[in-house]
Amino acid sequence: MKIDVFFTPAGVTPQDVQGRTVVVIDVLRATTTIAVALANGARAVVPAGSTEEALRIAQNLERDDVVLAGERKSVRIPGFALGNSPMEFAPDVVHGKTVVLATTNGTPALQTTHSAKEVLTLAAVNFGSVVQRCRVVLEETGDLAIMCAGREKQFALEDAFAAGRLTKVLLPEGGLRRVDVNDGGLAALELARHYGERWLRAFRASAHGRVLAELGFREDLKVAAIEDTHPVLAVYADRKVTGHRATATL
Amino acid sequence: MKIDVFFTPAGVTPQDVQGRTVVVIDVLRATTTIAVALANGARAVVPAGSTEEALRIAQNLERDDVVLAGERKSVRIPGFALGNSPMEFAPDVVHGKTVVLATTNGTPALQTTHSAKEVLTLAAVNFGSVVQRCRVVLEETGDLAIMCAGREKQFALEDAFAAGRLTKVLLPEGGLRRVDVNDGGLAALELARHYGERWLRAFRASAHGRVLAELGFREDLKVAAIEDTHPVLAVYADRKVTGHRATATL
Repeated sequence: MKIDVFFTPAGVTPQDVQGRTVVVIDVLRATTTIAVALANGARAVVPAGSTEEALRIAQNLERDDVVLAGERKSVRIPGFALGNSPMEFAPDVVHGKTVVLATTNGTPALQTTHSAKEVLTLAAVNFGSVVQRCRVVLEETGDLAIMCAGREKQFALEDAFAAGRLTKVLLPEGGLRRVDVNDGGLAALELARHYGERWLRAFRASAHGRVLAELGFREDLKVAAIEDTHPVLAVYADRKVTGHRATATL
Repeated sequence: MKIDVFFTPAGVTPQDVQGRTVVVIDVLRATTTIAVALANGARAVVPAGSTEEALRIAQNLERDDVVLAGERKSVRIPGFALGNSPMEFAPDVVHGKTVVLATTNGTPALQTTHSAKEVLTLAAVNFGSVVQRCRVVLEETGDLAIMCAGREKQFALEDAFAAGRLTKVLLPEGGLRRVDVNDGGLAALELARHYGERWLRAFRASAHGRVLAELGFREDLKVAAIEDTHPVLAVYADRKVTGHRATATL
């Protein structure tokens, strides 16, 4: 059995993820927002790498069906209906809609996975659903890759902790003796050992978490830190993320 | 006080290291080899990014003064006098010579630092000398950057552990309350907590260490794992690394 953790998309080649199931993590806040939106009834979330790309994607969709959302430097893009704060994605706002989400770090991470077989997005809020699917994948293929979005192409503590927490719960009985974990995975496991299930502590220690707190998004950190509040299996395919039941056959 | 750890040169911008003292780490094996060569009397070590670059550099030097050394995929480059195994760099081989060293991961890490004020190279074998200089730097400027070479643009456990061990011994009294450590530094500190002073354990857990062991370089791991066997302050400037006493004013 093999589990690889990549801390940023920078330096990851298509060969690294070719034909694999890849779990993408951008827990502050894109993959949290995606899970909340999907659990609250959004038809799909379409990630966009820039404001311009988001507008272009939205133009090709029915106006009434689309919600434009996104941030630049953690703040809502002017003119967009929503920012990137999960609490904005309430059922009455997103139910039945396609959300086009411009996100600084999440989009490059998703785009790096184009050679993958299956791509899931993970946050604390949908942790159990992703774990459930990963267990099936590991049973069937013995192989999993975890891709952290990171922050501006560099290591981000919150994503690395999440990768470590996922790796930890997926370890088979017998632990590291029975699974080949790469260097990134070994370091991520140390973070999981340190923070345990305390996502909020990891968020508050991280540079990104501190910036969000200073910008007034303290409540976002708390919302993003609770496991399984929005149990949905978020699957990225054909450039959009859609919600599934964790038990679904994909 | 501020200490930043970068796990790979990928994603690091010139602004990230501008005007700073940067410690470069490629402990398996370039920065270990560099410290050994300098402590054993080499006049300088000139890092090269490729076989071709090494040959070009050597052509511009007096033939009798030059030793060509280096590896590709951990094995000695055909026709070169030495590989990248620190044990080859004995006093009778390198004393008074300029070593041109072709190294896969170490060179890009050094090249990323061109906007830095001062660049040091760290290994276990010259750990104390670098620590001594870093303490002076932190006292004078309150600022330090640590750049891991990583492996093929990705996270490498052995370099990250070394970065964590350096960060840990440099923490002021009062620890993290008195110093701003970036996300990479916080994760590196967890590795330092886990492995303590046991460099060899970290090497043996790392993918690179396991590859070297399989290739027959088990002894290299042991040599590279002992602190302060080659006490020299290795300073990179004008494209070459030279040896200094740790107490020297630079």
